Amino acid sequence: MNFIEKIEEIREISRNSKKNNLKVGFVPTMGALHQGHLSLIEKAKEISDIVIVSIFVNPKQFAAHEDLDKYPRDLEKDAKLAYESGADFIFSPNILDIYPVGYSTSINVNVISESFEGEFRPHFFGGVATVCAKLFTIVEPDLVVFGQKDYQQCLVISKLIKDLHFPIEFIMEPTVRESDGLAKSSRNQYLSKDERQKSGILFIALEEAKKAISLGESDRKIINAIMHKKLREVKEIRIEYASSALADDLSQPEFFLKGDKVVLLIACYLNKVRLIDNMIITI
Amino acid sequence: MNFIEKIEEIREISRNSKKNNLKVGFVPTMGALHQGHLSLIEKAKEISDIVIVSIFVNPKQFAAHEDLDKYPRDLEKDAKLAYESGADFIFSPNILDIYPVGYSTSINVNVISESFEGEFRPHFFGGVATVCAKLFTIVEPDLVVFGQKDYQQCLVISKLIKDLHFPIEFIMEPTVRESDGLAKSSRNQYLSKDERQKSGILFIALEEAKKAISLGESDRKIINAIMHKKLREVKEIRIEYASSALADDLSQPEFFLKGDKVVLLIACYLNKVRLIDNMIITI
Repeated sequence: MNFIEKIEEIREISRNSKKNNLKVGFVPTMGALHQGHLSLIEKAKEISDIVIVSIFVNPKQFAAHEDLDKYPRDLEKDAKLAYESGADFIFSPNILDIYPVGYSTSINVNVISESFEGEFRPHFFGGVATVCAKLFTIVEPDLVVFGQKDYQQCLVISKLIKDLHFPIEFIMEPTVRESDGLAKSSRNQYLSKDERQKSGILFIALEEAKKAISLGESDRKIINAIMHKKLREVKEIRIEYASSALADDLSQPEFFLKGDKVVLLIACYLNKVRLIDNMIITI
Repeated sequence: MNFIEKIEEIREISRNSKKNNLKVGFVPTMGALHQGHLSLIEKAKEISDIVIVSIFVNPKQFAAHEDLDKYPRDLEKDAKLAYESGADFIFSPNILDIYPVGYSTSINVNVISESFEGEFRPHFFGGVATVCAKLFTIVEPDLVVFGQKDYQQCLVISKLIKDLHFPIEFIMEPTVRESDGLAKSSRNQYLSKDERQKSGILFIALEEAKKAISLGESDRKIINAIMHKKLREVKEIRIEYASSALADDLSQPEFFLKGDKVVLLIACYLNKVRLIDNMIITI
């Protein structure tokens, strides 16, 4: 399988593509590709001429206690899946090319990074924003595709693009789900059979809150409580947040108003596996 | 006089230049151009085909108590000088295009930003790094030229370029001085006639330390003390720092060794005017 490791090489491929008026689409990943990623690659292929997929497990977005070391890595398998889904080039840089000795620059997309995921993983979005900015200056894509499953990450990256004037179009693709509604995730493979069965509760909790909203509920605390109540039915679940916010800026009004675009957001541990999910609803 | 205000317009000029195999040089300034800036523009013209000069007083690098409001602004005069020195395009963006409402991304080049200027102006280099990254993604130059007078800024920006993989060559040009050695600076115009006469003491202090080094002095504290003693001869001077460090990373060993590249750094107030200067010496 053919990987590109060198920064100069992938940049030249991108520049040569653009010289030939080919639109360059980019899908940054940490590998462990599943159908969710593949749908992003397929989307990129649909709307661009050349698709670059990066596979790089970014240490800066893991905290010390998190699962960096055991994060699943299988470059050969990932590359095969990516190529089958339409990738033209796989960029898998060496860690010392991305973070050389003495590396010391950090990027923070403030405000939007601070609530929800940012509260429970304080360094997470700084690590994500920094590595994405680096990958964007390396790959110089015309467009990038990210998955809605990491909704707050989508907000952070689209704001990063806007605030730093990257000439890049941002595309968000819908979450891909298992048949019981569980959002596809690289971390799902950590679930035991029993846990896997119970994990469908996240989607059910989102659906129940959505139903209440469709029936007229607009009180944010009540909407949140509906999700909490449902999640508590699984005793192995420890909720970090199950909440709702305005989708554009994650602000949290007391009541939602007609026409508001609202995001329901869940993060919880099912025993030792951290799961997140979300759903967007227009009131 | 012809200014370009729109981000898309200056980017298109840069891209069209590069499509025609013209090298694009860039000199970011805050206006109030003096011979120091003009030497940067001349250098850029010498080593590139198209020279873009930005004129943008960046509010993010001023603290609340600093001189943002009274910072000298004369766009017509600056543009005339820049064009006369070889600028092909002047980019003078509107503040709301650079910092739109809701703007919230910040970039920090850590470690190197924390000592000397960073100690006395804690937000300064964050503001500088952020605006430079923004200007680099907007202008997409092949090379940038900065002045040695802001030596620590040169280190911060060249590290920013390296750490974020900007495909930009960094050029540092020597400080341009008045006949008595005072480094040219936009802030020199704030000096009264008497202060202007006394301000030459910074250069003399640097020269005395340099002389001591050339005579064999290698003890950092003694080198620093020589500069302090000289500066204290002017009673209107309040020293912020008068110090020495290894030029590459600003680390401060007890003794310098043969072959070390050392930078002497001074920042002080002469009454209300803040002056900085530096000198690089190989031991």
